[in-house]
Amino acid sequence: MNITIAQLNYHIGNFEYNKDLICSAIEKTRSEGSHLVIFSELCIPGYPPLDLLDRIDFIAKCNTTVSEIAAFCKGITAIVGSPTFNTDPEGKKLYNSALVLSEGKILFRTNKALLPTYDIFDEYRYFEPETNFSIFSIKGIKIALTICEDLWDEQPFDNKFEKSRLYTVSPMDELARYSPDLIINMSASPFSYTKVEAKKKIFTSKAAKHGIPVVTANQTGANTELIFDGASMIINGEGKIYLQLGYFDETVFTFSLEDVFASNSPSPEFRHDPVSLIHKALVTGIRDYFRKTGFKKCIAGLSGGIDSAVVTCLASEALGPENVKVLLMPSRYSSDNSVSDSIELVRNLGVEYETIDIEKPFTAFLETLEPYFRNLEADVTEENIQARIRAILLMAFANKFGSILLNTSNKSEAAVGYGTLYGDMAGGLAVIGDVYKTDVYRLSREINREKEIIPVKIITKPPSAELRPDQLDTDSLPEYGILDSILYQYIELQKPADEIILDGYDRSVVDRVIRLINYNEYKRYQAPPVLRISSKSFGDGRKMPIVAKY
Amino acid sequence: MNITIAQLNYHIGNFEYNKDLICSAIEKTRSEGSHLVIFSELCIPGYPPLDLLDRIDFIAKCNTTVSEIAAFCKGITAIVGSPTFNTDPEGKKLYNSALVLSEGKILFRTNKALLPTYDIFDEYRYFEPETNFSIFSIKGIKIALTICEDLWDEQPFDNKFEKSRLYTVSPMDELARYSPDLIINMSASPFSYTKVEAKKKIFTSKAAKHGIPVVTANQTGANTELIFDGASMIINGEGKIYLQLGYFDETVFTFSLEDVFASNSPSPEFRHDPVSLIHKALVTGIRDYFRKTGFKKCIAGLSGGIDSAVVTCLASEALGPENVKVLLMPSRYSSDNSVSDSIELVRNLGVEYETIDIEKPFTAFLETLEPYFRNLEADVTEENIQARIRAILLMAFANKFGSILLNTSNKSEAAVGYGTLYGDMAGGLAVIGDVYKTDVYRLSREINREKEIIPVKIITKPPSAELRPDQLDTDSLPEYGILDSILYQYIELQKPADEIILDGYDRSVVDRVIRLINYNEYKRYQAPPVLRISSKSFGDGRKMPIVAKY
Repeated sequence: MNITIAQLNYHIGNFEYNKDLICSAIEKTRSEGSHLVIFSELCIPGYPPLDLLDRIDFIAKCNTTVSEIAAFCKGITAIVGSPTFNTDPEGKKLYNSALVLSEGKILFRTNKALLPTYDIFDEYRYFEPETNFSIFSIKGIKIALTICEDLWDEQPFDNKFEKSRLYTVSPMDELARYSPDLIINMSASPFSYTKVEAKKKIFTSKAAKHGIPVVTANQTGANTELIFDGASMIINGEGKIYLQLGYFDETVFTFSLEDVFASNSPSPEFRHDPVSLIHKALVTGIRDYFRKTGFKKCIAGLSGGIDSAVVTCLASEALGPENVKVLLMPSRYSSDNSVSDSIELVRNLGVEYETIDIEKPFTAFLETLEPYFRNLEADVTEENIQARIRAILLMAFANKFGSILLNTSNKSEAAVGYGTLYGDMAGGLAVIGDVYKTDVYRLSREINREKEIIPVKIITKPPSAELRPDQLDTDSLPEYGILDSILYQYIELQKPADEIILDGYDRSVVDRVIRLINYNEYKRYQAPPVLRISSKSFGDGRKMPIVAKY
Repeated sequence: MNITIAQLNYHIGNFEYNKDLICSAIEKTRSEGSHLVIFSELCIPGYPPLDLLDRIDFIAKCNTTVSEIAAFCKGITAIVGSPTFNTDPEGKKLYNSALVLSEGKILFRTNKALLPTYDIFDEYRYFEPETNFSIFSIKGIKIALTICEDLWDEQPFDNKFEKSRLYTVSPMDELARYSPDLIINMSASPFSYTKVEAKKKIFTSKAAKHGIPVVTANQTGANTELIFDGASMIINGEGKIYLQLGYFDETVFTFSLEDVFASNSPSPEFRHDPVSLIHKALVTGIRDYFRKTGFKKCIAGLSGGIDSAVVTCLASEALGPENVKVLLMPSRYSSDNSVSDSIELVRNLGVEYETIDIEKPFTAFLETLEPYFRNLEADVTEENIQARIRAILLMAFANKFGSILLNTSNKSEAAVGYGTLYGDMAGGLAVIGDVYKTDVYRLSREINREKEIIPVKIITKPPSAELRPDQLDTDSLPEYGILDSILYQYIELQKPADEIILDGYDRSVVDRVIRLINYNEYKRYQAPPVLRISSKSFGDGRKMPIVAKY
């Protein structure tokens, strides 16, 4: 039997687009002799549909699209993911379903049993968990059809407080009673650079445990914050990876199941450098945000520092240099080389730029406010005014020319609130908002790996906001190596302060950093969506109360 | 037996504060001869603790606080709510527990079975649902102890697509097997002006069904967006309300259970005007946001329109006029009476104001941008610049004088994106962000019910953003009566467009309004937290994808 994995990039709620994408894959693989083509979880609406699932008309459109695709499946079987109505009088209104389609009919339906409701996932918000388990057969092959988390009943969490067995059911143990020949897993599993190896192990260990192959079909592409890495796998009955599809690639791949059954010498396992995967993820994230919102052009402020330099490079790669414009906006406090370094970068990339002095509006604000601030010392107020003037100028270009402002804040700044709300925190998309400063440096070297695109001077200069004379980040913050390590332990690993201190960090520094993180929830609440590349990004995956004291 | 309902206002994560609040109530009611004092759901950490529940040190502090309160319960029994560890190797790490404390011991523990995971609730994110049910006794009275949603197994939803029976278990039916004498319900149930009567009915119908009294203890006060209305109830065995505590009041009330058993003539049912409840809710929301973040003073922009007028009145009531400052910031497009009407209002309230012309910074921006925008027509870009200049001035005052900027956008504007990001959408708290424009008018009349605080001219003038000559809201939007009705049906009731049109609205208007709502998700993503008074507010209770097409 020939099986196809369709690793595709869906657009949420764009039923015509998703149907065409699915039908094209069916048509192509049927002509290549495939018998079964597997699409990813909730591919009909695109994942995550969020509260669109609360709309009955949205579900009706899902159903119609499924029927149309079923009618298209002549001489081939397709497995698609879609929400379906729970017809019981009790419980949640929907199931998260896998539907086996052929010759105009739904031959088999199974529903997701384990509904991830943690971090960015909230599936129990919408779906009733399945409690009955059964398998289906095609060409004499018995198939255990599972949806994403259904195989994740045992998983490692970065937060050691979480149980590795988050559920009281193991769907695959239930399905194993039917002695299936093959496990299929359809998923919409977002990228996290710390989970790459863990994700492989989840699936290889299930194959090894049950002694049968596992085939996974994961979504790829980005939907707002979430970037799906694809990397679908074929794993043989010994738990070895037979083949893995590309990371972040939209691809349709057909293989012979018999070859997998016969295989005992897997293809050599390839390991991926996390920084190179982060790089690809962010480019995918930018590209899809623009493509799926219908925008072509971006604008960004280029300060002469490393964050905006890296964002400009990523944007240029994602959208083409012809669609990137940057503004250089020096103030009375900017160093001379801020502008010259920036110009060197934009010339290397071939992106358009303008240099705009912010002195005139800055003076106008100072004069306008003078009667009220007379005799008061300059403080963060005047620093924020400069950052906010830059945001007004950037947004003016965005509004006038129909582009989207890219935000250039990094995760370290966002964590401790080192940024101005409605100033440098503005933008439609926070490109490196989930990348710690030390990883921004790693990204810059990755970008420069073949030639010097980002001038080395930008990489080696000490970080500064340049909002007052001779300002340096280290005036207000610990050195980034120490800061990022504390942040990672507190945010990703959710370690208590005492444990972080036991690791050798100074109590006063740890306490101060944690206080800053907690105090600045109100700022992050209004930050743009952040492209997520870690296991704990700011945004919907991390919900913290604003008025709390802790 | 004398029972006390403690309807209190907790501060999330502030264990010392919450413990003192609880112990004071215990001490006071013990001296008054109470035998049992009931606190509300998760009163130990305060509700909602959100992802603080993911931190093991946070749970440890909850446990310590519970032990300290148990030790304090000498000669009295207290029921408190706290998260507790799930010691099973499988499942979620915590339970949402009710703990019966006396003489230093936990006498009884029960855990919440029905975990609301919809709208603003996400309890399955943290908690394992309880599946075993038992009761406890005190002084020979058998008590069925339930936590909030446990009695809500059947409930009406505004969205008709939801099942009224959202769960497959009915905890009270299970508990009824033990023939309890009394039902206690501890809750942290937020206010929604459409749910006031429904909420009463949930509890009265349980009392009537089982023929025994129900006593509820609800949290009061606000935590960021959520405003808890208190309004705890004593319901007799016939399902009649014996007594209801005040809305939004922090109060501790002791009653004789025997009197309730004997009662068959309930106190007359009091109905509440929704607008007056909304008014109280918003004042509570402002007051607690400031008190719990440690701020005293607010600032707001006063445009001469009704929205900022209403917000200024609410702020003055919540914080005292001495803590409110407003800026009047006319531009070249402002009408003369914008300033004079505003001055009349601030004089009526006794709040401080400054009049600041935005012409100088506006000219500075136009001149700075002139080389790039030459020969291009003025459009929304220049309108946004004015709104953003005002935000810079307001934030400068907020930064310089340590106050919080109040946002004055209403729900109608937020819905259709009629506002400027980083401009009039700025602020720490969106006071009327869940109030439709037509309800803002109702609120203004409620504020003026005793005397004319808001000048009638402000109420009667046609709404305008005054960002270009002779601009009126109706240039870009349908008349607010029509707009709000469409918005309510689409947002709160989640009706499909076709159903709204069947109600008599023009298809082109409905389609345009829905398109605007959907298109502007990206703006609302960056809006401040919104004080929630409806069943579907913008913010965490309504999660919509940004890149979707629908």
